Amino acid sequence: MIHAYAATGPGKEFKPFEYDPGLLGATEVEIQVESCGICHSDLSMWDNAWEMTVYPFVPGHEVIGVIQALGEQVTHLKIGQRVGVGWFSKSCMQCEWCVGGDHNLCATAEGMIVGRHGGFADRVRADAVWAVPLPTGISPEAAGPLLCGGITVFNPILQYNVQPTDHVGVIGVGGLGHMALKFLDAYGCEVTAFSSSPDKEAEARQMGADHFVDSTDGNALEKIARSLDFILCTVNVSLDWPTYINVLRPKGRLHIVGAVMEPVALPIFPMLMGQKSLSSSPVGSPGAIAQMLEFTVRHNILPVIETYPMAQVNEAMEKLREGKAHYRIVLVNE
Amino acid sequence: MIHAYAATGPGKEFKPFEYDPGLLGATEVEIQVESCGICHSDLSMWDNAWEMTVYPFVPGHEVIGVIQALGEQVTHLKIGQRVGVGWFSKSCMQCEWCVGGDHNLCATAEGMIVGRHGGFADRVRADAVWAVPLPTGISPEAAGPLLCGGITVFNPILQYNVQPTDHVGVIGVGGLGHMALKFLDAYGCEVTAFSSSPDKEAEARQMGADHFVDSTDGNALEKIARSLDFILCTVNVSLDWPTYINVLRPKGRLHIVGAVMEPVALPIFPMLMGQKSLSSSPVGSPGAIAQMLEFTVRHNILPVIETYPMAQVNEAMEKLREGKAHYRIVLVNE
Repeated sequence: MIHAYAATGPGKEFKPFEYDPGLLGATEVEIQVESCGICHSDLSMWDNAWEMTVYPFVPGHEVIGVIQALGEQVTHLKIGQRVGVGWFSKSCMQCEWCVGGDHNLCATAEGMIVGRHGGFADRVRADAVWAVPLPTGISPEAAGPLLCGGITVFNPILQYNVQPTDHVGVIGVGGLGHMALKFLDAYGCEVTAFSSSPDKEAEARQMGADHFVDSTDGNALEKIARSLDFILCTVNVSLDWPTYINVLRPKGRLHIVGAVMEPVALPIFPMLMGQKSLSSSPVGSPGAIAQMLEFTVRHNILPVIETYPMAQVNEAMEKLREGKAHYRIVLVNE
Repeated sequence: MIHAYAATGPGKEFKPFEYDPGLLGATEVEIQVESCGICHSDLSMWDNAWEMTVYPFVPGHEVIGVIQALGEQVTHLKIGQRVGVGWFSKSCMQCEWCVGGDHNLCATAEGMIVGRHGGFADRVRADAVWAVPLPTGISPEAAGPLLCGGITVFNPILQYNVQPTDHVGVIGVGGLGHMALKFLDAYGCEVTAFSSSPDKEAEARQMGADHFVDSTDGNALEKIARSLDFILCTVNVSLDWPTYINVLRPKGRLHIVGAVMEPVALPIFPMLMGQKSLSSSPVGSPGAIAQMLEFTVRHNILPVIETYPMAQVNEAMEKLREGKAHYRIVLVNE
């Protein structure tokens, strides 16, 4: 039996929960969970905000752990090897996207916590391709948030070929945003942080921001019109989008990775005159995750975390709900 | 004196109008206008729909003609050489965009009919860089519409690296759309035409469409969900944008070149799940225009035109206003 923490309904308390995972699939691995990051989407799923939660619900999709069992067809991983698993736990491996290296765009990819049980547990399973080996030199405790939050902001940097010569912006200095600042600083870009919390300026600068702009100050945004090549929006609330389009240089891109629920409305004229783009993307492929992990080791990039024992999952989730996580919470198994 | 046709106010009749263009600038050329295409933006400017029209207003920014005089610094063109000029007549030649080959994104680029007089005239002037030599083998009479309408749809194909292996769509089978169909067919793509006029199917197929979809038929659009890599929207009215996002394959792009006046509102979730983009762009650089002209000669691509004598400018503009142009009107000087 796997010992986990589950909620029986939207927002309900997490309680110990056991389930039998059945026979290990031929291409799966079973992972002994050492730690599991908490992501804002665990909260959205707990509340059934996206109307796809199945209860009892076991969150957790930023898993770091050690392989305990291998499916019979798994030959590239070893028992005892440390791996990480993020939002996706499986994809079809047959479609053009899986075959082409874009597994995260597979139409039938399985979400770790969508209709199955996640990493707030002592063990969890995933398809071997999605269990990405953790390189040596990376703190296992701090690495969890890279697997979902980290790759969510790193993958667009890869996908859209952001260059060290680019002038870039990050909206939101939080769980995702603080990692984006570190990545883009390590890329060599000129980095502007946008936040509605002026008290985050000092930390944002420590994490790599060259400039800090109060995102609620229209005049400040007007002053930097036509200055950025790439803006990564990590918040999940509606902003004054036309103003950010205006901040983009010609050929610039506003890329939203926050799960904004309201439609994003944009005037076409300024986009047309400046050949500008709006886009969005989901996490990244196993190959992109491996590239990110290697990059984080080379540049000594880690998320800023607070840890809680796994048994204190309720306190940890409430802290996240209150917006008080600094910046990312990780649950640790004893 | 230059002899032109001008309107003295929004939508008012065009009447003969003379003006003194002054001394020829050092980097300018003066062109004897042989023909001038009529573009939908001539109509918008005539009506002051974009609130930037100066009257008396002389439209015309799809000019084909022969160089009659050269500014003292112009050495790469010759008297008697046939050239074309489109939406832009000048750019600063100093900024990073001009220096980088993206002159159409120059912040101070001068629109041929914005605060100056256009090509509904016997002569017109432009900066020599924007007077693009017409290759031999292209009909001077039919080439005009390539200079604005043509490059508007050709440039995004270049900018976004559309590939012959791509599955592409063109929304609108009209002045711009019919040229887009021809270009994309010549590129070797699988081409789907979207139109609200089912009677255009036969012509769309002749122009290169492999498939024709009634754009008002929601079921038909649902049937081709997740099938196209690139959709070029050439109409200037609001559509059911989320449905077209749904028609895109993962990594797909909806590119709007029609001057849609209402904001375009998009749900982020489907864009996020499929890593999709929305973008827009204005005409193209002189280099892109030259590439397009060479390509049109190699593939024998010309716009479908109707001609009117320049003196019948009022009849021609009314026909365009009524949506009866088939597909592009060209005014011809005797």
